[in-house]
Amino acid sequence: MEKRLFTPGPLGVSMTTKEAMLRDVGSRDQEFISLVKNIRMDLIMIAGVDETDFTCIPLQGSGTFCIEAVLSTFVPREGKVLILENGAYGKRQAAICRVLGINYQISSFPEDSFIRGEDAKVLLERDGPFSMLSIVHCETSSGVINRIEEVGDVLKEFPETAYFVDAMSSFGAVPIDMKLCNMDVLVSSANKCIEGVPGFGFAICRRSLVAASKGNARSYCLDLVDQNEGLDKNGQFRFTPPTHAMLAFNQALTELHAEGGVNARSARYQSNRAILRQGMQSLGFQEFLSSEHTGYIITSYYFPKHPKFNFQTFYENLSKLGFVIYPGKVLDADCFRIGNIGNLHARDMQELLTNIETVLSKMCP
Amino acid sequence: MEKRLFTPGPLGVSMTTKEAMLRDVGSRDQEFISLVKNIRMDLIMIAGVDETDFTCIPLQGSGTFCIEAVLSTFVPREGKVLILENGAYGKRQAAICRVLGINYQISSFPEDSFIRGEDAKVLLERDGPFSMLSIVHCETSSGVINRIEEVGDVLKEFPETAYFVDAMSSFGAVPIDMKLCNMDVLVSSANKCIEGVPGFGFAICRRSLVAASKGNARSYCLDLVDQNEGLDKNGQFRFTPPTHAMLAFNQALTELHAEGGVNARSARYQSNRAILRQGMQSLGFQEFLSSEHTGYIITSYYFPKHPKFNFQTFYENLSKLGFVIYPGKVLDADCFRIGNIGNLHARDMQELLTNIETVLSKMCP
Repeated sequence: MEKRLFTPGPLGVSMTTKEAMLRDVGSRDQEFISLVKNIRMDLIMIAGVDETDFTCIPLQGSGTFCIEAVLSTFVPREGKVLILENGAYGKRQAAICRVLGINYQISSFPEDSFIRGEDAKVLLERDGPFSMLSIVHCETSSGVINRIEEVGDVLKEFPETAYFVDAMSSFGAVPIDMKLCNMDVLVSSANKCIEGVPGFGFAICRRSLVAASKGNARSYCLDLVDQNEGLDKNGQFRFTPPTHAMLAFNQALTELHAEGGVNARSARYQSNRAILRQGMQSLGFQEFLSSEHTGYIITSYYFPKHPKFNFQTFYENLSKLGFVIYPGKVLDADCFRIGNIGNLHARDMQELLTNIETVLSKMCP
Repeated sequence: MEKRLFTPGPLGVSMTTKEAMLRDVGSRDQEFISLVKNIRMDLIMIAGVDETDFTCIPLQGSGTFCIEAVLSTFVPREGKVLILENGAYGKRQAAICRVLGINYQISSFPEDSFIRGEDAKVLLERDGPFSMLSIVHCETSSGVINRIEEVGDVLKEFPETAYFVDAMSSFGAVPIDMKLCNMDVLVSSANKCIEGVPGFGFAICRRSLVAASKGNARSYCLDLVDQNEGLDKNGQFRFTPPTHAMLAFNQALTELHAEGGVNARSARYQSNRAILRQGMQSLGFQEFLSSEHTGYIITSYYFPKHPKFNFQTFYENLSKLGFVIYPGKVLDADCFRIGNIGNLHARDMQELLTNIETVLSKMCP
């Protein structure tokens, strides 16, 4: 029996997506060059922008490599970043800036509420100018969805500030229009809501920003200007790409369109979320976020107050039954998380709930 | 018809290795933690060292990410690297050092000869002290095999100098004993002679060097000390690992052992090489390297002098027939390259030769 993953990624993907990896292709052969081109074009389209003004730069490694690459490449040596954070992934950006010697200001907001446009406005007016403002769209440590449209609106008054959104766990699941959001850079990864397998991330970037950023990068491999130049010049990666992961991703994109695009996928995830919410409520679990602040990617639940509840045992017993939830805790609050994303449908959510009930009733009779 | 790859990687791998990717596993679940542990132990053993003194640090991304990570992590802020180069991959290390602001000396040797111990000795005595000496084992741009044992011997007299070998395209194909070579760090990648798929590289490192290198790294993601701490602590990657590529790699290791280990694989590749050599000679092709300097990983051939020979056409026509050779030229000389590595056997080499003859006779009648 294969386990099902209710995690923020790597997540479960369709068998047909995995079967696309049953081939070896030359990374500098024409077929692969065409495939990479199609992937880049498709992602630009999904982001609501066009190839004239934007480029899509896939980068080997995990999504975090892409986040570091964006900060490393698009913040000038004398620049300064404003990071708005309300969770672990925002804080990680500050850690990256520290190591890279990038000047930054991190402004922290409560973990249980979304960040709004006016939060950004106050800081931009008081502490600016900034070369870049950075925010996480779906802060996966809680599941909160920050108000990226509002922040984008505010940034129209600050044209010197590039707008970077970490849309790692939301892209493909939550409709995002980069043009409407006035966004300059968006990052996501192959193994999130496009439902591919892990191996690379990608940055969708305004071409004018890329053109202005040559020589900024504090890394050779994580230089998005160089990476883009290679891809634009002859369609090839500078260094060996994860060919199999890209074959899978191409199939995953085909299946996203067949499902009806981002709107249809969003509807399925929201339906998963609704089933989970109702079922967990019946079992007595309490959500960390209020309904106003929650998204539908991943949900944080408080540990039950029952004296015999032990999360490690809960996790392991569920895993033995074939249901993998997220094992780590990253919030200050005592919470665990369940993902609604990936190749999950109503029946998967229902079976998860049944098994949670079984495990819980044994542990906390 | 699936094309066969005669390249330095990504290369063709067995169907069973690819089929190992037909699963989704949780990156923080116990099964995956065990798998990563086994892979790390196995690689240390293949390198001829043991876990007491050495650790294996897999890193997401291409092999070059791992090269950058080694230079970034193991060269102290005030340190200096001596790079001995005789091809594109050695030169790339200097480019990495430039971007990272690492003090380095690059000493260049002819592309058509191996670098010897005495070459290193002269430089170490004249220009030292160095924090690290770096050399490429099989310089894939030509196929030459540098004398890493001799260099290791010389380094016994320079204990302040860490010894780093880029064994990207040789590890798994050429027996390497890190202890015998007095080596501190070795790097290779999943999609080379272990015959896995691309997605990560790995550094096998002396633990004392890792312990002495905290805080050196010029990158957050490419910090091998941090990466190792995470893996040693709870067996987990800091950031999403390429789970499918690691499932494939685990299967590839099983198949390496079933074949008879590195010695048996070495014998198969040498046999591939012998068939290629004889066949290409019959067709009138001339090798770039003399027999004394050549290895058996990849072979460089001069372009034929026939006025109608055009490499691009030659490459494309071979590719159409299902045979992908390496399309790029990296030497100063006008050469192309054919790889002997990956899931290739005598029949594949013979069929390649037949098809080269067909393409050539049409192009250069």
